[in-house]
Amino acid sequence: MILGPPSLGRLAESLLKLPGIGKKTAERLALYIFKMPEEDASTLAEAIIEVKRRTRLCSVCCNVTEDDPCPICDDETRDEALLCIVEQPGDVIALERTGQFRGHYHVLQGALSPLDGVGPEQLRVAELMPRLQSGKVREVILATNPNVEGEATALYLAKLIKPMGMTVTRIARGIPVGSDLDFADEVTLARALDGRQSV
Amino acid sequence: MILGPPSLGRLAESLLKLPGIGKKTAERLALYIFKMPEEDASTLAEAIIEVKRRTRLCSVCCNVTEDDPCPICDDETRDEALLCIVEQPGDVIALERTGQFRGHYHVLQGALSPLDGVGPEQLRVAELMPRLQSGKVREVILATNPNVEGEATALYLAKLIKPMGMTVTRIARGIPVGSDLDFADEVTLARALDGRQSV
Repeated sequence: MILGPPSLGRLAESLLKLPGIGKKTAERLALYIFKMPEEDASTLAEAIIEVKRRTRLCSVCCNVTEDDPCPICDDETRDEALLCIVEQPGDVIALERTGQFRGHYHVLQGALSPLDGVGPEQLRVAELMPRLQSGKVREVILATNPNVEGEATALYLAKLIKPMGMTVTRIARGIPVGSDLDFADEVTLARALDGRQSV
Repeated sequence: MILGPPSLGRLAESLLKLPGIGKKTAERLALYIFKMPEEDASTLAEAIIEVKRRTRLCSVCCNVTEDDPCPICDDETRDEALLCIVEQPGDVIALERTGQFRGHYHVLQGALSPLDGVGPEQLRVAELMPRLQSGKVREVILATNPNVEGEATALYLAKLIKPMGMTVTRIARGIPVGSDLDFADEVTLARALDGRQSV
């Protein structure tokens, strides 16, 4: 694809596999890496190798971690009665950034998507079961994405967990803070109306 | 910055140094690389190392190359009388893609920018001189970018080269093909008028 030295082309093709990186960007990044100081380039290459070598999934919550159990599962100051189920490690990072949640997490590593061949067996549901059966969890918060796959996953989990006697909640869907009512799509607006709360 | 395993944070910080990659994208890419098959991740890391190890600047045209002189300088079917001066290796790739130019290139590896401390000494002008003095070049095409730095560089080079007796031309600036007159800024539109050609 890229016209130029083969090693530059190979780098561009490798970068092209990353999400959100198109042909032009891959080319631009490859040329930038070529111009980088040798040191920065090796740091980047090593960081890629390291992240694969050092990290694994926490055996408790299935989040990305270097230590097993992960620092969140290992943190005794956190509330064991609250379990927040998310799709991806990135969702844990986003929720932790709010500083509002002091419970534990469970990372499914995906969402139900029958068309892509992702059923409950492909998700980390097997690891979730013993946690729920331990009797320590009082409330399960379903924080999967508010899209088709996420909603289907939340529905599936709710049906699975409710009979076990725990409170099952779903994060609120509504107008994002700071945005305009005008710009919200109808489904979001309908959800925002549905989820209205007394003030 | 990133909340999570330190190796993930280090990777995100390394990625953040790349152009056009912000904090959110760096985080997303780092998590994606964590999830990549081991093989793809090492291919990417190796490609980064390889591009630094294998490539150098061509001693003739200062373009990125694995062989010296580069395949373009080495190509005897190309017209030695035409020399196109560009700022970056990426510009050569873009021009080669048109398939319209069969002359040689010279890559300045930058553009004049006094505020950033880039003067003629920081550009590959010293390597340009012997090429012009060889007597083989008949026309020099200035294909630096149509922005302040690129125009200043073109002006500087024109003043330098014209007394040597060669034809010096500048690539046309005007309305991009496929775009609308409405959307063009005034300067571009004025340039397009200036550069009008009889049909």
